Amino acid sequence: MTKRKIGVTELVLRDAHQSLMATRMAMEDMVGACEDIDQAGYWSVECWGGATFDACIRFLNEDPWKRLRTFRELLPNSRLQMLLRGQNLLGYRHYEDMVVEKFVEKSAENGMDVYRVFDALNDPRNMARAMAAVKAVGKHAQGTICYTVSPVHTVDGYIKLAGQLIDMGAESLALKDMAALLQPQPAYDIVKGIKDTYGDIQINVHCHSTTGVTLVSLMKAIEAGADVVDTAISSMSLGPGHNPTESLVAMLEGTGYETGLDMERLLRIRDHFAEVRPKYKEFESATLVDTDIFSSQIPGGMLSNMESQLKAQGAGDRIREVMAEVPKVKADAGHPPLVTPSSQIVGTQAVFNVLMGRYKVMTGEFADLMLGYYGECLGERNPEVVELAKAQAKKEPIEVRPADLLKPEWDGLVTTASTLDGYDGSEEDVLTNAMFPGVAPKFFAARAEGPKSVAKTPAQLAAEQAKAAGNQTGITGPVQYNVTIAGRSHSVAVEPA
Amino acid sequence: MTKRKIGVTELVLRDAHQSLMATRMAMEDMVGACEDIDQAGYWSVECWGGATFDACIRFLNEDPWKRLRTFRELLPNSRLQMLLRGQNLLGYRHYEDMVVEKFVEKSAENGMDVYRVFDALNDPRNMARAMAAVKAVGKHAQGTICYTVSPVHTVDGYIKLAGQLIDMGAESLALKDMAALLQPQPAYDIVKGIKDTYGDIQINVHCHSTTGVTLVSLMKAIEAGADVVDTAISSMSLGPGHNPTESLVAMLEGTGYETGLDMERLLRIRDHFAEVRPKYKEFESATLVDTDIFSSQIPGGMLSNMESQLKAQGAGDRIREVMAEVPKVKADAGHPPLVTPSSQIVGTQAVFNVLMGRYKVMTGEFADLMLGYYGECLGERNPEVVELAKAQAKKEPIEVRPADLLKPEWDGLVTTASTLDGYDGSEEDVLTNAMFPGVAPKFFAARAEGPKSVAKTPAQLAAEQAKAAGNQTGITGPVQYNVTIAGRSHSVAVEPA
Repeated sequence: MTKRKIGVTELVLRDAHQSLMATRMAMEDMVGACEDIDQAGYWSVECWGGATFDACIRFLNEDPWKRLRTFRELLPNSRLQMLLRGQNLLGYRHYEDMVVEKFVEKSAENGMDVYRVFDALNDPRNMARAMAAVKAVGKHAQGTICYTVSPVHTVDGYIKLAGQLIDMGAESLALKDMAALLQPQPAYDIVKGIKDTYGDIQINVHCHSTTGVTLVSLMKAIEAGADVVDTAISSMSLGPGHNPTESLVAMLEGTGYETGLDMERLLRIRDHFAEVRPKYKEFESATLVDTDIFSSQIPGGMLSNMESQLKAQGAGDRIREVMAEVPKVKADAGHPPLVTPSSQIVGTQAVFNVLMGRYKVMTGEFADLMLGYYGECLGERNPEVVELAKAQAKKEPIEVRPADLLKPEWDGLVTTASTLDGYDGSEEDVLTNAMFPGVAPKFFAARAEGPKSVAKTPAQLAAEQAKAAGNQTGITGPVQYNVTIAGRSHSVAVEPA
Repeated sequence: MTKRKIGVTELVLRDAHQSLMATRMAMEDMVGACEDIDQAGYWSVECWGGATFDACIRFLNEDPWKRLRTFRELLPNSRLQMLLRGQNLLGYRHYEDMVVEKFVEKSAENGMDVYRVFDALNDPRNMARAMAAVKAVGKHAQGTICYTVSPVHTVDGYIKLAGQLIDMGAESLALKDMAALLQPQPAYDIVKGIKDTYGDIQINVHCHSTTGVTLVSLMKAIEAGADVVDTAISSMSLGPGHNPTESLVAMLEGTGYETGLDMERLLRIRDHFAEVRPKYKEFESATLVDTDIFSSQIPGGMLSNMESQLKAQGAGDRIREVMAEVPKVKADAGHPPLVTPSSQIVGTQAVFNVLMGRYKVMTGEFADLMLGYYGECLGERNPEVVELAKAQAKKEPIEVRPADLLKPEWDGLVTTASTLDGYDGSEEDVLTNAMFPGVAPKFFAARAEGPKSVAKTPAQLAAEQAKAAGNQTGITGPVQYNVTIAGRSHSVAVEPA
């Protein structure tokens, strides 16, 4: 029997450590695994995105562009893959088209191959320019469907969106399930529907493992025709992260599908990161499995954000009210998927509504969302709330693509960057400062000091273990010390009170 | 569409804490969840077995029979389920038939409903008497297939074994995957094969989650016709334990199957055990997912046993040799599944072979295994090694059912028990001492002192957390003390060296 080959995208260098250890992994902890990753037979290696870029300059004093070049050098046989937030690039606002083109050009020059282009609202207009730019430099443009669950999101709607992405020239499609909400049956139905409607377009499926159910969703997606699935090596898997790569391989054994991955390489990659993971333990979340999101629709990260906002206001006990408010706010906004930045915008407004009365005070971002400045959602926006937004923000709603309102800004960005201490004159630096203007200046100034890992050293880990072991044993009898004070020596016994 | 109802067996009261925290959970930590468990709509509640019985008397000073009666009282609407090691009962040797009957009678009287009867070698003769005894008292006899992977274990072989169990009067069948080896395709093939061959006999599927793949196996088993699957509430799930109950519910949403479980009850059960779990943290294994067993065929518990045996001999560096020896020893013994007690017997012999030369020294247990004293395996035993066993053990091989060689022993067991301090005169006590003669006398003598939990108290946990927080801050500068010695006061500065 000829088995159908299922491609695998390895996430350990990007989304796995982003989800499990707050994106803190330093390049020095990845280098040692690269040869095995490069030879294991993956379809692609995800290694770059907004949070890794941000963490590089914010916490690790590492140049993210240099990190990309190092990956290119160490992974010569691999497709390097990144996550690109459409017209937002890696930042939190819309950029004018020339900036989008510059970013794609420079990242391609530095080694990127596959661009997974997405938009938080699933608005194809926000993805179009980035997709076109990727195609213009001859790289792989992957159009993305962000999966969510709402009264207006249907299998047919996702199939229609797939068609729009294909019309925009997508070389492949990604079904992206950032909240582990994608259950087996819809996974099957969406993939099958796309294949039946549009023929053999490549479909990649990306699921988190938070709810404990999505390896089954990958199985059903594969049965429905999915071509590539995303996993993370087992020692960097599960919890808010992803399904384990080795488990996927085992899952398909004996079926009509196979990954072709080299298991010996996988085990070496696993062992490498099993050594690395404890060094970042302080950044790990304790969540192992959480199915609450199926009823609350609230991703874990969004929930903890809202909790800290409430606590800051001395209203930590009102989280249940806020959780009940979120679906209302989400519906008023036209049912956006809850992913950066829409999750923060909806969550903060829900907190404001509970604390100050519904829409008594609107954040600027929520008003923008209601007025179309982030793009279009699938659902209709509540017209009454749109009126309130107009009044509070003193702005008119727009129907055009948000970036159409932007003036050319590249030259200004170059000028701004050139005033900064440590700016190296490159277009890469201009882009870094454009996307992270609050962080980049400090990074440029300190860059010459070189990377600074936030991981524990082996010595620190050993000391902690020894201390823990000591704590367990405990001190039961008196301990003698010789203490010399004012030239006289005394024997002192110390014991637990 | 009418959905097919899938029953669920909740494992949290037995196998979940056995697998995750060395069976240490005290009854007091279970009581609070019982009402929700009883009302959630499970097919059965597994709550008793060899390791929980052993842990009760060895570590918790708790009477396991009393625990059973308490479950009966607190779970009036539930089928209580236990795991019974056939002719071994809950102990480590074969018992004469009357003891088997007494055990089944007394456990039924105390409240047991469903008996999952298994044998480590899958020898139906070792299960027959226990099954018959269960039927004689009008309870549910579930015949068990222990799943393993070997050159002689085939889908057809498992289907044949299912037929033997049905012929013995099994009211249902369990497919038991103690090592998380059951991949989706064989899960489907075995269940489908049994249903196609024997019609609508109830099939329960029990998988551990160690390899990260078995929730998919449960899905495929359900698609093939499985009726009941085993899971553990999410806060006591994953790792060497089991798939999360809530994830199973989510997995089936939208499909042609449903569990009918009450999600609000499940969330309360989850929250209860989320509070309990940290109290037993010191007993937890760090393993989250481990797919090594697919290549090594060695369950995790067996591996750590062999490692400690080697270390005790100052040969900790020879574990790779021992791992390579295990498949050879297993093959010589006729490919027994590796589960208690065969895993220990094969593992120890592999250690002996590496340290002293192959079969130069045989353990008494391994010789017995080679000579048929544990029953028959599916594969043929290596005749050369059988000859060595005869010579070393000075015993002849047997072909009869091992328990056929035993003389009536009940009266002797009563006499032995009646000599013990604290023996309460009950047949339950006779059985306790018969199964755990090395532990029961001490337990009887101390029983009046009542249960002793080994869990941390909330106060201890809080103190540890405070200490950990203190450790993180660390002492960076000198601390001043006033020390009075021999009537004179001194100011002393202490700082880290």
